[in-house]
Parts: sequence; structure tokens; C-alpha cells
Amino acid sequence: MRKLKVGMIGGGGGFFGKVHHRAISLDATREVVAGALHQDPAMCTRFADEWGVVGYPDYKAMIEDWKSGKLELDYVTIVTPNFLHAEQAMACLDAGLPVMCEKPLCYTVQEAADLKALARRRKNILFALSHTYTGHPMMMLARELIKQGRIGDIRKVETYYNQGWLATLLEKEGNQQASWRTNPKMSGISGCGGDIGTHALINALWTTGLGLKRVSARLTALPGRALDDDFNVIGILSNDATLVLTATQIAIGHKNDTGFRIYGSKGSIEWAQEQSEELHVLDGATRVTYYQNILPAEAPCVLGTYGRIPGGHHEDFLEALANLHTSLERKIRVHKDEKDVAPSYDHPGIEEGVLGMKFVKAAVESSKKKGAWTAL
Amino acid sequence: MRKLKVGMIGGGGGFFGKVHHRAISLDATREVVAGALHQDPAMCTRFADEWGVVGYPDYKAMIEDWKSGKLELDYVTIVTPNFLHAEQAMACLDAGLPVMCEKPLCYTVQEAADLKALARRRKNILFALSHTYTGHPMMMLARELIKQGRIGDIRKVETYYNQGWLATLLEKEGNQQASWRTNPKMSGISGCGGDIGTHALINALWTTGLGLKRVSARLTALPGRALDDDFNVIGILSNDATLVLTATQIAIGHKNDTGFRIYGSKGSIEWAQEQSEELHVLDGATRVTYYQNILPAEAPCVLGTYGRIPGGHHEDFLEALANLHTSLERKIRVHKDEKDVAPSYDHPGIEEGVLGMKFVKAAVESSKKKGAWTAL
Amino acid sequence: MRKLKVGMIGGGGGFFGKVHHRAISLDATREVVAGALHQDPAMCTRFADEWGVVGYPDYKAMIEDWKSGKLELDYVTIVTPNFLHAEQAMACLDAGLPVMCEKPLCYTVQEAADLKALARRRKNILFALSHTYTGHPMMMLARELIKQGRIGDIRKVETYYNQGWLATLLEKEGNQQASWRTNPKMSGISGCGGDIGTHALINALWTTGLGLKRVSARLTALPGRALDDDFNVIGILSNDATLVLTATQIAIGHKNDTGFRIYGSKGSIEWAQEQSEELHVLDGATRVTYYQNILPAEAPCVLGTYGRIPGGHHEDFLEALANLHTSLERKIRVHKDEKDVAPSYDHPGIEEGVLGMKFVKAAVESSKKKGAWTAL
Amino acid sequence: MRKLKVGMIGGGGGFFGKVHHRAISLDATREVVAGALHQDPAMCTRFADEWGVVGYPDYKAMIEDWKSGKLELDYVTIVTPNFLHAEQAMACLDAGLPVMCEKPLCYTVQEAADLKALARRRKNILFALSHTYTGHPMMMLARELIKQGRIGDIRKVETYYNQGWLATLLEKEGNQQASWRTNPKMSGISGCGGDIGTHALINALWTTGLGLKRVSARLTALPGRALDDDFNVIGILSNDATLVLTATQIAIGHKNDTGFRIYGSKGSIEWAQEQSEELHVLDGATRVTYYQNILPAEAPCVLGTYGRIPGGHHEDFLEALANLHTSLERKIRVHKDEKDVAPSYDHPGIEEGVLGMKFVKAAVESSKKKGAWTAL
Repeated sequence: MRKLKVGMIGGGGGFFGKVHHRAISLDATREVVAGALHQDPAMCTRFADEWGVVGYPDYKAMIEDWKSGKLELDYVTIVTPNFLHAEQAMACLDAGLPVMCEKPLCYTVQEAADLKALARRRKNILFALSHTYTGHPMMMLARELIKQGRIGDIRKVETYYNQGWLATLLEKEGNQQASWRTNPKMSGISGCGGDIGTHALINALWTTGLGLKRVSARLTALPGRALDDDFNVIGILSNDATLVLTATQIAIGHKNDTGFRIYGSKGSIEWAQEQSEELHVLDGATRVTYYQNILPAEAPCVLGTYGRIPGGHHEDFLEALANLHTSLERKIRVHKDEKDVAPSYDHPGIEEGVLGMKFVKAAVESSKKKGAWTAL
Repeated sequence: MRKLKVGMIGGGGGFFGKVHHRAISLDATREVVAGALHQDPAMCTRFADEWGVVGYPDYKAMIEDWKSGKLELDYVTIVTPNFLHAEQAMACLDAGLPVMCEKPLCYTVQEAADLKALARRRKNILFALSHTYTGHPMMMLARELIKQGRIGDIRKVETYYNQGWLATLLEKEGNQQASWRTNPKMSGISGCGGDIGTHALINALWTTGLGLKRVSARLTALPGRALDDDFNVIGILSNDATLVLTATQIAIGHKNDTGFRIYGSKGSIEWAQEQSEELHVLDGATRVTYYQNILPAEAPCVLGTYGRIPGGHHEDFLEALANLHTSLERKIRVHKDEKDVAPSYDHPGIEEGVLGMKFVKAAVESSKKKGAWTAL
Repeated sequence: MRKLKVGMIGGGGGFFGKVHHRAISLDATREVVAGALHQDPAMCTRFADEWGVVGYPDYKAMIEDWKSGKLELDYVTIVTPNFLHAEQAMACLDAGLPVMCEKPLCYTVQEAADLKALARRRKNILFALSHTYTGHPMMMLARELIKQGRIGDIRKVETYYNQGWLATLLEKEGNQQASWRTNPKMSGISGCGGDIGTHALINALWTTGLGLKRVSARLTALPGRALDDDFNVIGILSNDATLVLTATQIAIGHKNDTGFRIYGSKGSIEWAQEQSEELHVLDGATRVTYYQNILPAEAPCVLGTYGRIPGGHHEDFLEALANLHTSLERKIRVHKDEKDVAPSYDHPGIEEGVLGMKFVKAAVESSKKKGAWTAL
Repeated sequence: MRKLKVGMIGGGGGFFGKVHHRAISLDATREVVAGALHQDPAMCTRFADEWGVVGYPDYKAMIEDWKSGKLELDYVTIVTPNFLHAEQAMACLDAGLPVMCEKPLCYTVQEAADLKALARRRKNILFALSHTYTGHPMMMLARELIKQGRIGDIRKVETYYNQGWLATLLEKEGNQQASWRTNPKMSGISGCGGDIGTHALINALWTTGLGLKRVSARLTALPGRALDDDFNVIGILSNDATLVLTATQIAIGHKNDTGFRIYGSKGSIEWAQEQSEELHVLDGATRVTYYQNILPAEAPCVLGTYGRIPGGHHEDFLEALANLHTSLERKIRVHKDEKDVAPSYDHPGIEEGVLGMKFVKAAVESSKKKGAWTAL
């Protein structure tokens, strides 16, 4: 079976480019072959050599080489700061290249609308938004169980993402990750909300299938910081159930403590990323725990498809991200009429990206208006 | 050493009277000797016989017998529905009898103000509000560590109380506990907020020593229920830190899932009632877990004083409630100049009761005003 | 309802007398009224005054007063070091007084045989051995589920008790608890094995209903210590299943880490004392967790009978011990033809005491014979 | 940087070949280029096509092609059943090809001795035994902390591996994994002991640096099964401390529940594979938990070297196995004088393989001799 060939935009300097590189490589069915890995041409060459791929000083040149047949590519992965996503994604999609784009989708609600409009004009666009957590098999199982009515009608959703790494003003100490994330010019109107609040939101909405109508929010930041680092929202979901979303970057000792508790009329479903291998279903008397790679018959679409090792040996973050690449890979192979392609799973795309952008905007506004309900 | 003699008002029918009875008896230093255990005189006699105590059809008669010297009493425990607390507590305090009163303090903010005024007029009043959870040694340790600056300045407090027992309309099926708790005439303006939201609030404020300035809230109830069963609040604490408080009675599978996460400038402190024997202190790298009855030197006031058994054998709810009775017992013994009385610990009283009443009122108002910030 | 009247032998100096005192008092249906609380008459008086009970310098005098009608007693609780149990228990039983005796049953296998013979001669003897952990509702549920065939035939039992408090030679530093426990004259032929190995054994055998045929053991002690502080046994159960029992007092950081994992042909059942409120039933795919005070219909005999508070608020060590007293209390009340006595549960007695004594003896022998299988 | 080129022997049919394939690919610094993936030539071709590598019907032909320069290879990974390891490893090492070999090392103690002799004759042999769990950063940290004296002298080691997948006679139902593992001709003299008991042993000995002197064992099997499926050992370590090792394949509900508790004179260290991201250090009062990818300064050799993603996002089984490949990769690069190679970590090799073989043999003998101590 041939390996899919992947180009990357960005990713040379930050840690996440290498994370995507590994997630792409893991299954030995895909490989990174080219990259415009850095805005500085010298750095771009250096990283291309280090990775053993063809380096491009400019992502447009990479697309041109693909168009002209000089470079073989199946899709492009975008790992740049938020403010660059829209332009780069539009260029790829416009040229007909499938895209795996880092979240959040883009920089402004307007850009998100433009991307959505492009997607509507061009049918059959293959675009995946890398909300990595949705690649966890137990999140996929949660979604299936909810669809099947296991917990009845949803009445309340609590979703959270607690981190502690910005409990000091790291951005003043030259930390690169902190610098661009707390810089409005690179991140947009929200720091914590855009970076991890959107994860908490999409985790919950993708799992439940619900939308969001309006929010009341309180956002704060440490003195001296330009964007929020603590982001708390009470919302009203599309079925009028209540959403409680908390995201923070000042909870010392918390690393990537994200997860959700979904309360329905017949039971509850709970998942936490730091024990991503377990899914809990609660009724009034007992708690039933499901385990990764030992999936129940209720979830046929997941069983054996996105798991790589026997139960009890967990798969975690890199494998969840690889699952998103696998879903995109399968869609591409189907698109190219390759044989015997296993079924893919639907992960977040442009719709969820638009929703995330609107959510952050509404929360910022509500916080300025002293908690008043604000529609998306 | 003589045993303190306790009278009880209410408690004959509901489950909680027996809980107080056990918490009073546990240490073999106190005993219930008399009670106006029920409003129905026949039931009152039945329960008095069952408990082996002197029965009174009317609590006023019990107080009169004490005043006239016919009955020996050291204090009274009030275990009636909320709307009766104020009158009964005032009668006891007026007569000079110390009180252990169930929470919430009373029925209206006005009653709370009256109680506070009475307490101000009469100095040396001995009054304890049975916020049971504050009797847990690990909550007492958390409070000490925060006082000592272990986690620095407090930046955010998350406090919660999740239950699932009201996920159906139990009150329509003759459940006595559900009936009075969802009845505005007996509970007041809030169901879930008054019943367990106040626990979540006082747990957090008593531990941190902070006050509360204003709240934004969303309260909901299942169709057909008269009072809220889901109660979500974002608040601003007295030091401008953020409070996120969630309380619910529709989270199926959750029983008495209350606890808090307190984030400071130097670390975090976390406690959960359902593993009440552990206290977690987090810094950026590690989590340090303290265990009940194996307390560190930092907390001299707690060590060995409120623990009954060796570490690893836990004490739980009944013992925490007994700790509140112990604190009151010790104050009474000091007051009566008994010898060799061990030091007592300060648990919630009228001030915290007033705060709880104001909090619930502000939350109800904010929810009606679509989440607008509302001052206490 | 009248309170049962309890006499105590020993318990004045050590911590465990007070623990029994509280477990007796907790339910307000029993009270300690007399005691030969210490071997030193002056100390005996001091403790009797402190507890507010009638003091006896000699337990025989207390029995005599009961015989002559001067003292009302329903049963006696023995809380002395191991080497005194047999004589004291025989005296009580001989006189017709029911006994709650601390474990291990006695000092030698011969004494155990004598006690058993006495019990056989005198029918209707009421004798309870305070293997406290068997009083935990979740252990009672485990036993019921196994009886009902929930996990099929039992194939392997792992049971353990890890402590760390004897990781240094505390007995050289004047620690009273350490001194008698590591002293062969007071404890018998084994330290760790007799003290906590017997708990691990009885927990497992009482729950499964199995007996023990033979053992292979390795016992060790820190240099300078007279009795084993680490006690490891592989055994063959009465159904030829394998027992693995580990008990230690040198596992630093472990406090009272006892529990079991029972593997059957259809599933597994697991319980751990430090989360005594949970019972886990595992099949091949999921783990089902039961919670204290929210018991399933499969266990009618336990439901609501030995639980005092609503689910989610745990009961722990003192309440488990109180459950043993409750079982004895109920048998005594039935014996005395009192009315409306709730059903009692069968907890360990003389049979289990004899088994524990034989087990320790066989383990000590096997260890001396380099691990050779040794019959009980 | 060039990618190392890897050949594989076996692995085409079983699940573990693909696991190694992924672990090799994950870091994008190594790739499988050739393989004698199956004993059946047709299957071999099929798998080679599927993987996109050069297929060889016979592993010797692959070695010959490498010798003659037709095929470029940096090392070979052996993923065949136990009875084939020795011959294949010897052929590779004899030719000068580095080897990553699946455990256990081989089929008999004699073969192990031959391999050891070969390694002694030929210096600078690069050989890694894939005891995957030793690749977990937290096991590496545990080893460092013990070396640094954090828990003092080691007094007792408990190590375990509980599985439940062989609780029925799966080998009678055509399950390929079960068939070869329970077949003495393919697995050797022990089933459970060789398969997972050796993991439990090497995890503990590699971490502590201790050896093993003698053992007492009880091995059993379900009726109808040819090799042990339950394997329990008490042992004496090289420093006379006690080892308790339990391994089982009939513990229903347990998947890959392996880990250890190491008790020293100053504290304890505990690790469990199913929460591989945590390491616990216990002293008498508290438990300190370390987290993967947030390593303390005490472990400079690990920090940032074998971790790929930020703390809180875990790495698990595939990454641990990749770490072993990384260690071998680094040694190979140093050997070939490549530049800027990061330091490697010492993982198990031939010595540990020999130890594992002797351990299993001694345990089988002791079990036959009714638990008598048997020297390795």
C-alpha cells in the first residue's frame, strides 16, 4: 500500500509541528515529504534538513510545485499561529489540496465566514480541524452512546480545561509558546478562551451533537497580561440545556486537565483527558467503566478501527491526533478510488471551527457587559 | 467526666435527626436526654420512647422545663425544616441555651438579620451552624495551610455540589425528603441553591476566609418542579478573585459529590468530600497528598484533636458532624469553667448563615435578570 | 427502647479501648457502664472516672457483681493484649456472659481449641470476634454476591494488608503499641502475621466461604526485632484454588492498606479498605462499581440494615466496628425475647478465630522449613 | 538527518509486528525497509506488499543481501515466537547486525547461555531486549531515584502482572495468540511465567538494580491447558530482601495490570502501567506524585530526552516501545560516528534475558517440589 505524502506549513519552530510529524508517521501509511516549515528561509532550510524533507521558503511555492506536478502531495497540514490559518487554508483548498488545520480555525469571525463560504462553493472539500481530543476512542464511544440514547435527553453539560502554565507572566521571560498565545496580534481577541476554551466547547458539542445559543461570561487576566487567562462561561445549548464551561491557565498543578460531564434524563457520561482510556457511564446506583481498546458491541463503528494495541495498553495524545490524520487519509483514499479503504469517522471541520470563533466573540462581549446573556 | 445533656427540636421523622443523634452519642461525652421530636404529639411520644429520651409535644415546653430547673440541658440541636429555624433558634438563644442549628440558617434574609441582631445584643452567645463538611479534618487542614500562605494569594475558587437524586419528580411520588425540599413554603426561594449550593459556598468561603461581592447566575428546574434543581453561579469574591459555583440535583449517579479546587499564586489546594480523607496540594511539578489522621506539623491546631483513629482508617460524615458538636461542647465546657477542656476550632455560625441567605437571594435575582451581575 | 449495658476488659491505656467505646456508643442503643480497664488499679480508677463508668480493679470482680445481680450487663468487650484473651473470654462465657473479643482469638492454638471445646459444650454461646473489616457493608455485599454465584467458581484469591509504621524499631523508643506487638510474650509466635495477616486471611475466607489447606511462607524481621514484620504466604484453599497473602509493617507510606481481589470463573470482585465505600465487580469488558448505602437488589439482607446515612456520605471504620456490635446486640435482644429486633448478620466468631491461630502457626513453620508446604 | 533502515523477522501475522512497525515509524527517524515477515512465503509477500517493504521468504536471505551490500540495514527487529529467537538473533549478531529482540530472550536456559557466550566473544555487540515497560519515562525516573538513594536500602519488592484474557480455554477456539502462548513447543516450559512473569521480574530488577538468588513458587493451569496460567513466586533478592511476584492470566477484568511497589528503609516507590504517567514516592506522611513529561531536576538524564509532548498529555505503550528503539538507534548512530547524537539510556539486554530464563526454570522446579526454595 502506498504511503500518503504530506506537506506541512509551519511547525518548524514550535513544539507542535513535531507532534504532527509524529502523528503523521506513526501508522507508517503516511509521510511528510515537504514543508514550508518556518517564515525565516534559513530556519526553513535547517528544519527541512533535520526532518529529511524538501524545504520551501514559502508555502505558496510548495503549492505551485504541486500544481505543476513537480511535487507529489496528498494533503497539507497547517501548524502556524492562528492569524495565518485562514489565508493558508484558503490557498490550499482553492488549489484543491485537502487540509488538516490546527485549531482555532482562524483569527476573526469574518475569516471563518469566508472559509465556510468557500467550502459551500466548492463541494467535496476535504478539510479537518485538528481538535485532537475528538480522536480519542473513548470520546468517539461517548458520542455513539449518546446518539443511541444511553443517557436519554441531555439536561446539562459541564466541560472544562484547566492548565497552570501561565500562572506567572511567562511571556515577559521570553517563552515562545507564551508570547504568541498572549499576543492579541497573533491569537485574536481571547487568549485562554481561544486556545483551550474552544477545545472544551468542541469536545462537548461534538460529543452531544448540540449547538449553543447564548452565553454569560467572566474573563480575567493577571495584571500585565494582554489577553484573558481565565475564562468562565454559563451558556444555553440549542435544546435549552445548561452549559457550564470553565477554562483556565492559572490553575497551578493542572496540566491538560480537560474533560466533560454530560447529564441526561437517564444517566450521565463522563470523560477526562488525563485518564483518556476510561469512559464512565453512571446510572442512579452504579458506575460502569469502559476501557479503551475493549469496546462494547454498542459501538461497532469504533471497535478495532481506531485502536492499535490490546486493551490495557493505552493509546494517548499522539495516537488520538493520528486518528484524525487517519480519518482524513481514508477520505482521501476513497476520493482517489483506492481499494479496500476502511471506514472513516467524522471529526470536526469548518462548521465546528466557525462555531468556536463565534463562541469566543460572544464570551468576550458578555464579559464586557457584566455577564449579560449574549447571543452567538 | 460528666456527659453534656442535649435536647433536640425536630428530627423524629426525617433521617437527619437520627444522624445528629449518632453524632452526639459517638464520643460518649454527650447524650440526647430530651426532645420535641415531631410536630404531631403522638409521633413525638413514639420517637421519644424509641430513643429513650424525655418527650415534649412542644419545644417551648422543653425550654420552660429547663428554665425552671426541671430538666437539665447543656444545649439544643435544631433539626427542623428551614422555615422553622429562626423562631426556634431565637427562643433558645433568648433563654440562654446554646444552639446547634441545621443549615441553612433560616427562611428569609430578614430572619437572618434578626438573628444577627440578637447575637449582637447578647454577647457570648454560643451558636453553631451545622455545615457538616467543615468538620472534616482535611477541610480544617486546608484552611490552616491557606492561612499560612502555602498557596499564596487566591486567584480563583471552584466549588461544587453534584447530586442526582432529584433527576425525576420524586416529590410527586410521596418522597418526604423531596417534598419539603421542593416546596417554597418550607424551603424558601431556592431549592438546590438553598439546600446544597449554600454548602458549596460556605465550604469555599470558610476555607479561604474570603467574602463574596456579587454573582451572575442561571437557575433551572425540571418541568413541573416549583424550585430550582440546577444552580450555576459565577461570582466575584471580596479580593476580586473569581468564584465558579455549580450545584445540581439532576446529575444522575452523583450522590454527595461536593468539594473545591482553590487556585493561588503559589499553588493549588483541592479537596473532595467523597474522598474526604485526602487533601491535595499542587505545585507546578508534583501533587502532594496529605492523609486524614496523619497530619503535618504545619497544622498543630488540628493534629490529634479532632481525629479518633489511626491514619488509614478513615473518619467520615458522622465523625465530621461529631466534630462540630465537639467544638460546641468544648466552648460550653469552657463557659462553665470545667477543667482540662481541649481547645476548640471555629466552625461556621451566624455570620456564615447570613452570608448563605444573601447569596441565595442574589443568585435568584440574577437568574431572573438574565445573568446580570447582582450584588449581595 | 432500653440501651444494652456493656462491660469492658482492658482498653484503658491503648487506643483501641476508646475505639470500641465509641463504636458501642455510636448508635445510642448501647452504652459502656462498667470496666476493668487496666491492670494497674490506680489507672483503672482513673480511666473509669474519665469515661464515667463503674471501675473494677479486676475483671473477675466485675463478673462476680454481675452474677450476684449487683451490676447489670448484657455483654463484655475484651480489649487486652493477645495473651490474655483466652482466660478472660472463658471466664465470661463460662459465666454465661456474651463476649465481643478483639482478634486474634488468643495466644496459642491449644487455647483456641479449648475455647472451641467450651463453645461446643455450651450451646447458644454468643461470641463475636472483632474482625472489624467484615463489618463494612461492601464486604458484606461482596460475600452475598459471591454466594449468589456472580463471579462463578473461585480460582484465585489475593489478599493483603500493608502498613509502614514499624519500618523503624519503634519498640526501642518506648512506643507502647509497638512494644507489645513485637513482644513474643504478649503477641505469640508471630508479629505481623498475628496482628494483620489474620485480618487479611479472615477478610478473604469470610467473604468467599472457603477454608485453607496448606501454606508456603517467608517471614522476615528487621535486625533487632523479635517477631516478623513482613509476612508472605502462598496457600492452597479448600477448593484447591490459590491464595496469595501478603502482610507487612515496613511498607513506608502505607497505613491500613488492606483489601482483596477475588478471581472467579465468571468475573472478579475487588475491595480495598482505604476506599471502603466502593466494591468493584469486573467482567471481561467493564468494571461495575457499587457504592456504600446505595446497594443493589441482589443484596436484600444488607440494604438499609447496616447503613446509617445516605449514599455518598460514607461510613467507615468506627461504623464497621459498630456493625459488629450491632450484630451481637441483635442476637442478644433475640435471646432475651425483646420485640421487633431487626435481623442480624453473621460475622466471624470462634471458628474463624481457630482458623487464624492455625494459619499463623503453619506459616511460621513453613518459613522455618524454607518454604515447604505445611498443612494447617 | 538520515533515517535508520530496519529489517524485521516475523511480525506479519501476529499483532505485535505491527506494534513494532509503528514504534519504529513514530519518530520519523527510522523506517522498516525489509522483512522476512512470515514463515509462509506467500504470506510473507502479502505482508511485505501491505507494508510497502522489500519481502524475503527467509530471514537468512535478508542477512545475505545486507552482507553483499544489496540491502541497506542498520538493525533487525525479531518478532517471532520464543523458540525461534535464539537462532535468528545469533545469525544477526554473528553477521554484525544489531538486534532488537522480543522477550523472552529465547526458549531454553542453554540457548540463553549460548547467546551470552557469543556476546562475550564479540565485544561491542548492540542488542536490546524489548521489555517495553522499561521504556516508560516514569520507570526510568524510578530507577534514577532509587540509584540516588531516595528510598534508602531496599527491603521488599512486590511486582505483578495481572491479565484475564486466558480465563477460558481460548486456545481450543482457534485464537492464534492463545495457541502459541499455551503450546510448550513454541513457548517453552512456562506459559504465564515466560510471557508476563518475566516482565514483572525485569521491571522490578532493572528498576532496583538487584539480582535474584532463589524462589519458592506455585504454578497452576486451568484443566485442559498445557502450560501454567497462574504463576506466584516468593523470592530472595541478591541483598536478601524479599520479592513477591504474582503473574496471572485468569484475573478476569484485568488487562495489562502490571506494576511494582518497592519498599525501602526511607520510603516507597510505586508505579502501575495502567497509569504509566504517574510515579508515586511515599514517605511516612504524604504521597508525592510525579508526572510524565514534568520531570524533577533529580533525573537530568531523562528530562526532555525521552518525552515527546507537554506534560498532561501522556505517552504510553507505543511511545515506551519507541523509546527502546530510540536507545538502540542512538547507540548505532554513535557507533557509526554520526554527529550530534543525543545520549541513550541503558535498557535491558542479554544479561536480563538470561536472568529471565533462569528465573522461569527455577520457578517451574520449585512448584514441582511443593514450594521448596530453589536456586537460580
